[in-house]
Amino acid sequence: MPYVNIKITREGNVTPEQKQALIEGATNLLHDVLGKNKKTTVVVIDEVDTDNWGIGGISVTEIRKRNN
Amino acid sequence: MPYVNIKITREGNVTPEQKQALIEGATNLLHDVLGKNKKTTVVVIDEVDTDNWGIGGISVTEIRKRNN
Amino acid sequence: MPYVNIKITREGNVTPEQKQALIEGATNLLHDVLGKNKKTTVVVIDEVDTDNWGIGGISVTEIRKRNN
Amino acid sequence: MPYVNIKITREGNVTPEQKQALIEGATNLLHDVLGKNKKTTVVVIDEVDTDNWGIGGISVTEIRKRNN
Amino acid sequence: MPYVNIKITREGNVTPEQKQALIEGATNLLHDVLGKNKKTTVVVIDEVDTDNWGIGGISVTEIRKRNN
Amino acid sequence: MPYVNIKITREGNVTPEQKQALIEGATNLLHDVLGKNKKTTVVVIDEVDTDNWGIGGISVTEIRKRNN
Repeated sequence: MPYVNIKITREGNVTPEQKQALIEGATNLLHDVLGKNKKTTVVVIDEVDTDNWGIGGISVTEIRKRNN
Repeated sequence: MPYVNIKITREGNVTPEQKQALIEGATNLLHDVLGKNKKTTVVVIDEVDTDNWGIGGISVTEIRKRNN
Repeated sequence: MPYVNIKITREGNVTPEQKQALIEGATNLLHDVLGKNKKTTVVVIDEVDTDNWGIGGISVTEIRKRNN
Repeated sequence: MPYVNIKITREGNVTPEQKQALIEGATNLLHDVLGKNKKTTVVVIDEVDTDNWGIGGISVTEIRKRNN
Repeated sequence: MPYVNIKITREGNVTPEQKQALIEGATNLLHDVLGKNKKTTVVVIDEVDTDNWGIGGISVTEIRKRNN
Repeated sequence: MPYVNIKITREGNVTPEQKQALIEGATNLLHDVLGKNKKTTVVVIDEVDTDNWGIGGISVTEIRKRNN
């Protein structure tokens, strides 16, 4: 019954299929490495606005601006 | 001053009254079991899209489809 | 399949029975209010050292000292 | 590489500049107090609807109503 | 710069090598599915006492007892 | 009533005074930037073993070994 939380920035480009791949991959990872029961493994993906995510003291919104 | 975080799927059916009942119930639970001060108990409810929540390696969106 | 996280200070006084009561209470709350399936409701209790928990800008260790 | 998560209520009044100030302030705080490397410090701000945040057993939506 | 948090029960049987495999696996997953930069992907593993983890309203400590 | 969670690695070198400084600093930050009430601001510091924290696909334990 592991619980996996994946936080990523919300940049309008993650498809339902990719989310399904993250869910499947994380569930398989816990099964393969620790033998955990896939049926009770919970995976939650949080998507965060780029204004709300900072690294190195700068918001991702600002980082993206500087990179473009 | 406990902090309670409740994560549920966002399926468009949780009313403000139900959220109030969750807040009240969780606050009372910490008070009744551990004698915690209701005034400083914080309850936060996170609603997560069904694409973003997986169990058994499958997203809830997909689970709901299969069940219908 | 709700996920409930309860964070409380670690003050050496929460018994296994009280933790079981918190787990049961939180699970029943999600069932009673939202009709959630008890079997897939996950409850995780985090106990945090009083040095590591602050309210009003003061650690709980310090608050406890001032109250004694 | 610290990770700082700031949860606040979503009341439509937090500007991108204020979010940037929170990101910068939290990053500087970890650097100034613990000498952490700013470049790998992650700050994530979660904004929560007032229906979904309770204190003292009452939702912030209700608290705001009573205060107005 | 994704952030992945893996919560598992603390049952004295997860080796440093298995933790490294979880870290590597989760990092590769975000890279393979979303093209995320491995260098800034953070993975944090939380181990929780079995008294502190409940599913179906019962602590894992109790579940383990019943299964033995 | 903001909630701030600071996650850092447990490397045996963070003193109670530094934790108090983190608590105070985070509380003041929310007050100064958003005018939040210090009295209801909660700060929780989580310390994570270096085996349990990975960046770039490598545990901090391993990173520290390579750097020494």
